[in-house]
This record gives sequence, structure tokens and C-alpha cells, in this order.
Amino acid sequence: MGRWEPDARGRLAAAALALYAERGYEQTTVAEIARSAGLTERTFFRHYADKREVLFAGAGELEDLFVRAVAGAPAPAAPLAALTVGLDAVAEMFADRREFARRRHAVITANAELQERELIKLASLAAALAGALRGRGVAEPAASLAAEAAVAVFKIAFERWIAPAEEASMQQLIRESLTELKAVASGA
Amino acid sequence: MGRWEPDARGRLAAAALALYAERGYEQTTVAEIARSAGLTERTFFRHYADKREVLFAGAGELEDLFVRAVAGAPAPAAPLAALTVGLDAVAEMFADRREFARRRHAVITANAELQERELIKLASLAAALAGALRGRGVAEPAASLAAEAAVAVFKIAFERWIAPAEEASMQQLIRESLTELKAVASGA
Repeated sequence: MGRWEPDARGRLAAAALALYAERGYEQTTVAEIARSAGLTERTFFRHYADKREVLFAGAGELEDLFVRAVAGAPAPAAPLAALTVGLDAVAEMFADRREFARRRHAVITANAELQERELIKLASLAAALAGALRGRGVAEPAASLAAEAAVAVFKIAFERWIAPAEEASMQQLIRESLTELKAVASGA
Repeated sequence: MGRWEPDARGRLAAAALALYAERGYEQTTVAEIARSAGLTERTFFRHYADKREVLFAGAGELEDLFVRAVAGAPAPAAPLAALTVGLDAVAEMFADRREFARRRHAVITANAELQERELIKLASLAAALAGALRGRGVAEPAASLAAEAAVAVFKIAFERWIAPAEEASMQQLIRESLTELKAVASGA
């Protein structure tokens, strides 16, 4: 088996989050994360570029999955229908990650630089989704507006999903958020 | 008249933008901005906290105006109707600022820190608008979704408004963007 470590990536992420929560993100070093996970720094850097990447690797995966699902949605589909295919696809990523997501959110909320990074990831997601819609023949500004609306739906569903005591699934909250968007948009 | 300088604030902003465009935001100092405007550093600091503030003072004014207009919209009004009152109010801020806005946008696009600041301002606007809607009795998640949708409408209208050769007014582009949002939301 050599240097293979079972679920090293997950253990590093869990150790990092625990340390960020306990002593603060800024104060935590990669060496401490690795030690706490019972692994080496070398192993850390095989999985993550730096300590920030532990918090944002999932956002990159989410964007890839979301964009691929929108691009591959059955044609013809209206923009929001294609985006709904993407929202359903990413909802599945969240099945058993709620505690991780809650802890991650608390760490990010405590650090201005991480909050900025989170906003950049959401802006990047909106831009990528607008690109996927244009690739399906959707004109501007409809493509960008639909993409921004879908990111708003995702963001608000996610904020509800990680709220204390919330038990509804991400899929259910995304569906409710979509329904609410349609009601809001048709209500004035 | 003493130290009063006619339109010192506007002259400082114009001088700052010209310098940011010419030699880069990072390389420009407050002393250079003041000199280029024919004013003193002391006068600069009576108008702006720092050189970044020259670019973002307008965003603060916009948020105040937007939120006040939403809070003061005639009741009863559906969330998007109240937000439309706010969008109409801010559209008037943009009447004769297109060239300034285009130059400002070019400076911000060239600097990652300024882009982050712009995203933070938009997130702050969405949060403030959601608060104004809750103040009108709108429940969550409708308040946050409607606020995010209105910020998307604003953002996309603004991006069109500053596009090269665009001549339509901000008010017209906001109206089109709102219509597009409604079409997108009802289309799936």
C-alpha cells in the first residue's frame, strides 16, 4: 500500500476545519493540520494547494458539475429549465455534508478575506452558467439574468440548508427557492 | 470664501480616475491626485477617506437611496413592485455619469482587490434590500430572493449601460432587464 492513506483528503479537511474553528483560520498552519490528521505536510500538498483550498475545493467541483449539467440538459429547454437540471445535479453533492458545511460557513463568516473569496466563487459560478446558456443559444441579457437568478436560488437554499436545526434536504430547499423566485418575479 | 473650492469633490474624482487609468491604481498616490486636481492633500481627505473611496463613494450613496426608496414605496406593494420603485430611484443617479462609470469600470476590472470590493458592495446591497423588504413585512426566503433578483437586474442593466456605444438610458435598461427576469422566471 506504500504511502496511500485511506481517505487522507477527508481527514485533512476535517482536521483543518476543527483547527480553524478552534484557534482561527489565520493562526492555523498546514503543519498543524497534517499533524492533527496523523499525516505529513507532503500528503497535505498532494491534496490541497494551500490551507484556503481546503475550504474552496468543493466550490470548484460544484461549478464544474453545475455547468456540465446545464450544458447537457435536454434540448430544447427554456433557460430556467436547463438551470434547474443543474440545480438538481448539485443538490446531490450536499447529501451528507451538512455538518461540514455549517462548520465551514462559521469559519468563512469570521474572516473577511474568506468571505471575499466566497463572493468571487459565486460570481465565477454565475459567469460560467451564463456561458453555458449562451452555448445553448440563449441570447444576452437573458443568459446572464437567468444565471444570476439561479445563483440566487442556490445561495438562498444553501443558507437555509445550513441554518441551525434545518432538516430539509438541499434538493427540497432548492425547489422551494425556485418556486419562490417564480412567485416573486410574477408578483409585480 | 476661504478654503472652499468649487466642485473639489468632482475634480478630485476626475483626476483620480485619469491617473488610475494612465499609470494604474496601485501606482497612484493621494498626493498625485490632489496635485493633478490643483488641490491639496488636506482637501482630498476632507472629501475621501482614501484613494479607494473615490471609486466606491457612489456605491454607498446608491445603496442608501435604493434602500430608502424601497422602504418608502407605497404599501401594499408586492416585493418586486417595491424593489422597482427603488430601481427607478437609482436609475436617475446615472443620468450623466456614463463616461465616469466606464472609466471606473476599466480601473476596477484591472485590479483583483477592487473587483472583490465591488462584489462586496453588491452583496451588501442585496442584504440591505432584503432587510428593507422584511421591514415591509415580507417573509424569508421571499425577501432575500427578491433582493438578490433585483441586484441581478441592476447589475446586468449596469453592465449593458457601460458597454461601448450603448446609448439607452439606465432607466430603460433596468426596465428591459426586469422584463427579461420575469420572462426567464415564468419560462420553465
